Amino acid sequence: MVQTLKTLGPKPAADLDGDLMSEEGGFSIDQLMELAGLSVSEAVYKVHPPSSGKRVLLACGPGNNGGDGLVAARHLYHFGYSPTVYYPKPTQKPIFDGLQKQLQQLHIPFANDQPFGKLAEDTDLIVDALFGFSFQPPVREPFDEAIKIMESGKKPVLAVDTPSSWHVEDGPQDEGIGAKYMPDYLISLTAAKPNVGHFKGKKHFIGGRFLGKDIADKYGLDIPEYKGVDQVVEVPVDVRVEKL
Amino acid sequence: MVQTLKTLGPKPAADLDGDLMSEEGGFSIDQLMELAGLSVSEAVYKVHPPSSGKRVLLACGPGNNGGDGLVAARHLYHFGYSPTVYYPKPTQKPIFDGLQKQLQQLHIPFANDQPFGKLAEDTDLIVDALFGFSFQPPVREPFDEAIKIMESGKKPVLAVDTPSSWHVEDGPQDEGIGAKYMPDYLISLTAAKPNVGHFKGKKHFIGGRFLGKDIADKYGLDIPEYKGVDQVVEVPVDVRVEKL
Repeated sequence: MVQTLKTLGPKPAADLDGDLMSEEGGFSIDQLMELAGLSVSEAVYKVHPPSSGKRVLLACGPGNNGGDGLVAARHLYHFGYSPTVYYPKPTQKPIFDGLQKQLQQLHIPFANDQPFGKLAEDTDLIVDALFGFSFQPPVREPFDEAIKIMESGKKPVLAVDTPSSWHVEDGPQDEGIGAKYMPDYLISLTAAKPNVGHFKGKKHFIGGRFLGKDIADKYGLDIPEYKGVDQVVEVPVDVRVEKL
Repeated sequence: MVQTLKTLGPKPAADLDGDLMSEEGGFSIDQLMELAGLSVSEAVYKVHPPSSGKRVLLACGPGNNGGDGLVAARHLYHFGYSPTVYYPKPTQKPIFDGLQKQLQQLHIPFANDQPFGKLAEDTDLIVDALFGFSFQPPVREPFDEAIKIMESGKKPVLAVDTPSSWHVEDGPQDEGIGAKYMPDYLISLTAAKPNVGHFKGKKHFIGGRFLGKDIADKYGLDIPEYKGVDQVVEVPVDVRVEKL
């Protein structure tokens, strides 16, 4: 029996984030990004434990998706990996400045000026934290090169929240860069997005273990059944998608 | 062979926190408290999984130690526990306001006006997050009652960073409230404190998996050998203590 996975379109997904960070919700962006990035790092550990190769390339975009990638890089380092960060368009906000400083203190290399193809050759896994659910085409430089490389499928890719360049509902672009991009793994944050119906990779996780019943009910979401102290949970790939 | 555990006195412990949150360190208090509280909740899970009883009473003091307890309460809720929070002296700072709001949204009860003895009767485990390493005696109302109850040993206690009322180096007070206080479990945050030499409980954990090699070297600390994606690691109780 094919299960149903409830997904949030861009408007309710943004509203939900807003609720968490409202006066009533009480969360700061620092707290949410920390837990989101931690769940990304735990997903990496599940699909690609350090024994499978310690090199992880984190491709980080200019928005919050990229911030999740920066947090994940720190945790991966502490888990025993050798992360490299590609973050060519840093955002000038205190949280992004701080996350970069933390990585610099750990001597994690930033390889922003190197060709993405070369970086991909020298890694065992790519984390795609370029764009999130609010992405609007086209893919601009320098990220077009990264998408092309990930699209080539030469190295396994774990996409954060949504495969970069995909439309949040319609999935891959009809043509051009990213049209054939299919990451091996996907981690949805807080809730899956409707484009997960186009995901034909190997494993799909949900992360962000901070969703309470009231907010889940408000948006019609089910809270995933996490195990133990895990910050991520694997969900079936072959599902029927319901857009909320 | 008795191992040596390196510990930080109050001055270097405060300096280390300062380094993490300096311009160079890049951490915010929100990030560090989130990871500290998460490690407290993972320690609870290790000593007292939900199958041993889901009720956890979090005794939270007015400082950062109490904030770690508030964060732990949230994670414990998501792990399937039924937390109750005792937080009679809330601090008027945005992070503490926010942490309380997060718990209120989950309908986690705050039992600040109830006698601590009654709260202890109705729980399976107490988390002592009253005072940290900068505590100065005497124990003032209303916390004296909580210390007396924890001292009675009627319910298992996990102490956060340092057993409340203990001197950071000399351990339990010579006489009066807390003189016989010996929690069953202890989780040290970032590094053990010298009073761990007086700890004769069952298990000792270290948490706060964000310490990098540069800062560890600066203070002469060893980075604990965490496993997998764990945010806590158990260390031997019967150790020789070296004060840095």
